[in-house]
Amino acid sequence: MTTVALYKTYVHKMQRLADVRHAHAVLQWDQETYLPQRGAAFRGRQLSTLSELAHGLFSEDALGNLLQELQTKNDLSPEESRNVALSWEDYSKAKKYTPDFVRRLSDQTHKAFHAWMDARKQNAFAPFEKDLDALISLKREEADLLGYDGHPYNALLNEFERGATVGFLDETFANLLPSLQRILQQIAARPQVDASFLHQHFAKEEQWAWGMDLLKKLNFDFEAGRQDLSEHPFSTSFNPQDVRITTRIDENDFGNMTWSCIHEAGHALYEQGLPEPAYGLPLGEACSYSIHESQSRLWENNVGRGHTFWKAHYPKLQQRFLAQFQNVTLDQFYKGINQVQPSLIRTEADEITYHFHVYIRYELEKRLLDRSLTTQDVPRYWQEAYRNWMNITVPDDKQGCLQDVHWSHGSFGYFPTYSLGSFYAAQFYAQAKKNLPGLEEELSKGNTQPLLQWLRQGVHRWGRFFESNDLCRNLTGKPLDVSYFTDYILEKYGTIYNL
Amino acid sequence: MTTVALYKTYVHKMQRLADVRHAHAVLQWDQETYLPQRGAAFRGRQLSTLSELAHGLFSEDALGNLLQELQTKNDLSPEESRNVALSWEDYSKAKKYTPDFVRRLSDQTHKAFHAWMDARKQNAFAPFEKDLDALISLKREEADLLGYDGHPYNALLNEFERGATVGFLDETFANLLPSLQRILQQIAARPQVDASFLHQHFAKEEQWAWGMDLLKKLNFDFEAGRQDLSEHPFSTSFNPQDVRITTRIDENDFGNMTWSCIHEAGHALYEQGLPEPAYGLPLGEACSYSIHESQSRLWENNVGRGHTFWKAHYPKLQQRFLAQFQNVTLDQFYKGINQVQPSLIRTEADEITYHFHVYIRYELEKRLLDRSLTTQDVPRYWQEAYRNWMNITVPDDKQGCLQDVHWSHGSFGYFPTYSLGSFYAAQFYAQAKKNLPGLEEELSKGNTQPLLQWLRQGVHRWGRFFESNDLCRNLTGKPLDVSYFTDYILEKYGTIYNL
Repeated sequence: MTTVALYKTYVHKMQRLADVRHAHAVLQWDQETYLPQRGAAFRGRQLSTLSELAHGLFSEDALGNLLQELQTKNDLSPEESRNVALSWEDYSKAKKYTPDFVRRLSDQTHKAFHAWMDARKQNAFAPFEKDLDALISLKREEADLLGYDGHPYNALLNEFERGATVGFLDETFANLLPSLQRILQQIAARPQVDASFLHQHFAKEEQWAWGMDLLKKLNFDFEAGRQDLSEHPFSTSFNPQDVRITTRIDENDFGNMTWSCIHEAGHALYEQGLPEPAYGLPLGEACSYSIHESQSRLWENNVGRGHTFWKAHYPKLQQRFLAQFQNVTLDQFYKGINQVQPSLIRTEADEITYHFHVYIRYELEKRLLDRSLTTQDVPRYWQEAYRNWMNITVPDDKQGCLQDVHWSHGSFGYFPTYSLGSFYAAQFYAQAKKNLPGLEEELSKGNTQPLLQWLRQGVHRWGRFFESNDLCRNLTGKPLDVSYFTDYILEKYGTIYNL
Repeated sequence: MTTVALYKTYVHKMQRLADVRHAHAVLQWDQETYLPQRGAAFRGRQLSTLSELAHGLFSEDALGNLLQELQTKNDLSPEESRNVALSWEDYSKAKKYTPDFVRRLSDQTHKAFHAWMDARKQNAFAPFEKDLDALISLKREEADLLGYDGHPYNALLNEFERGATVGFLDETFANLLPSLQRILQQIAARPQVDASFLHQHFAKEEQWAWGMDLLKKLNFDFEAGRQDLSEHPFSTSFNPQDVRITTRIDENDFGNMTWSCIHEAGHALYEQGLPEPAYGLPLGEACSYSIHESQSRLWENNVGRGHTFWKAHYPKLQQRFLAQFQNVTLDQFYKGINQVQPSLIRTEADEITYHFHVYIRYELEKRLLDRSLTTQDVPRYWQEAYRNWMNITVPDDKQGCLQDVHWSHGSFGYFPTYSLGSFYAAQFYAQAKKNLPGLEEELSKGNTQPLLQWLRQGVHRWGRFFESNDLCRNLTGKPLDVSYFTDYILEKYGTIYNL
């Protein structure tokens, strides 16, 4: 067969596989948005079957042989070569999973998700414990299947951020957290900012309409996506023309929905900007979890909690919620939405304490995985960690160890990418300001297109062509450098709190 | 292998197949309710891939061998034997379809669906013609693949109603239509009933809330199902615990939504009543399309357009839409909702003229399939048929040959089951009144449980154990007998119009 014909066969196989994976994603989206209560058990088996079929399609020997043959060809374009090389890596990894393991993991994940939902309803960790424990055993089994150097957690980390290790993360956090703690102490010694106006009553329908408008202003494309409500906000994509996000609304907390909208929009703008012709191929996929998170964090924080952004949007917000905001100035609003305060819920945390939330989960996952901590110790560990790092008391499990959906989805090793995403975001945003001298001016007029186009060019259109660090180097001239983040924090909060 | 082990393997294979088919159904449901505009093309390929995979799983030689071996066993229960026999029939039929044909049909169906949507937007048949024509060629190819005696349409009819033939239907309609025409003439000579109060303004949100309440009163189980909006109302089921219906709302036509709700609820009650342990097996599926339609028509018409039913619900309806109904008595309402009048839209037709709508489609399909009519002749044929049979002028294609979604879904041979469904409904309902002496009394109190339980026992729980006609014989002592329908029509409309 000619290289062209071989490559075409490869594309065909990958796109069929993508269809099954995206069908799986549609069923998951439906599960978390519209599934009737008693439909859960059957949905679980439908998801398991699709996982199994996808795994079967991706671990076919015929695909492996094709990929090996394609790697011997020297007449592939650089993009084609990269696709083939990445698919071969993915394939080799997938081959390590037995069909039996895939089904057991999918079944247990499904059980754990519903146990987590139940546990949240009951506001008690206990109903989740058994299924979480079974899931951790499976994740340990997965680490062994995948293989690792050093800590078994490295195998799982690698699923979300290639090359990340416990060693690297331990060091990064060890450098960062003490300086964040110093800033926290300085802030604590200053007059506190008022954010009470964010905790008035904001009607659900009005918030929804406001969020939808905000998404339009951020250039979320509603012809190629939609927003719905779910228990826990998330984004998912079935192709660049169908990207879906969800949000939740708390009538007594204005920030809850607004910045979750902007955050998920950041993810969605990335997915809507991936190259459509590469559907099903590595170059049609996002670079990595940390780069994905860099997009959501950049829009949520560097843009969406910026003074410039609200210069454009605050007058409209005031008009819409006149009773709540008429006596709040733009400066007061800006300070309020950037209030720094140790808190219980990660997704609502400020940009500084956020990284303690992540670090606590990271430490906990490591220990659960190497069994230096048992599952039943989770609530106690959680309480102690929150006391030690942020000096706050966790009143119940719903506001503690049950708050995140991730574990119930079987995602261990994911949380660290949240911090990495913030670090990348700071570095990218600093570069955007250099490359786009009119950036702040445009943002202050409500025009986010220049920034979006810069990200499309520098990040989105590349798919997985570059690894995270190379993408960062191409865009900013340097690999990941956490000092951009600490500089950003010092500058921003130095001004807000007069440090 | 023991029979028990063989049967278990069979069940496992069938349930996996059901998972894929239901994933396909979820993607279709999503396509018609929530899919973003530009997501259509990718959704099409995802659906095609799932069709292909399902077809692959169902036509595996291993499954065929298993079914053949199971058929030699004499230690299966009657239910098990029946499952195996029906699966073997289905399997043998599926083997006639090549994977290539399945994909071409799925692709073309997808194209046709979107062409139909476009054509409706433009209110012109032309944008649909080419894709419809290609679909008809494929359906003709399908008839040839399946094989048939006599007319090629028999092959397609058989997909929806086993054993139904052009001969049987021609004869049934030839007997029925002249007597319906006589009744229409008698009605035309009588003072007409007033239905204008149904065409006032009824706000969308209010109608939606009313429809949801009505569904609850009909015992639609919202823990095992949901209702959404779509262009064309439909029902779909992913298992008895997840049955979904859709409706549409016309603010200037009260009847449009209300009786579509009841109709789809009839389908859904059947699906929610199918035996859950038989998931994926023939005995977990509905008996046939005509029996399915008997359930929707029975609830929609025999119950839902009955005086007794509205005796219970009209006072609440009046309260809810006081401005519209305060001067309309129950008797006026009852007559209005049963107004007989030749009309353009099948789903809004009265119980008499409905069958002309079906017959016209049936004749048209036959002719398109044997090529005695070309696709481009469809609008002209439609106009002439509506003039000949009901003496009405079709003003445009949206109210004419573009009104039904069926052809765009590739469903040819389906429409006749709508009439058969009405005939079965009349026969079943007559029997229910005999078996349940308190039926009318309970309905007049708003209690539909006795009727639902009677249908659960006599129809729903059996799945495909019996064929339509045998089910009918078990329930009523006779095979299908159209005179029940004509008796019902004569009695009902005789009273309303004083014939």
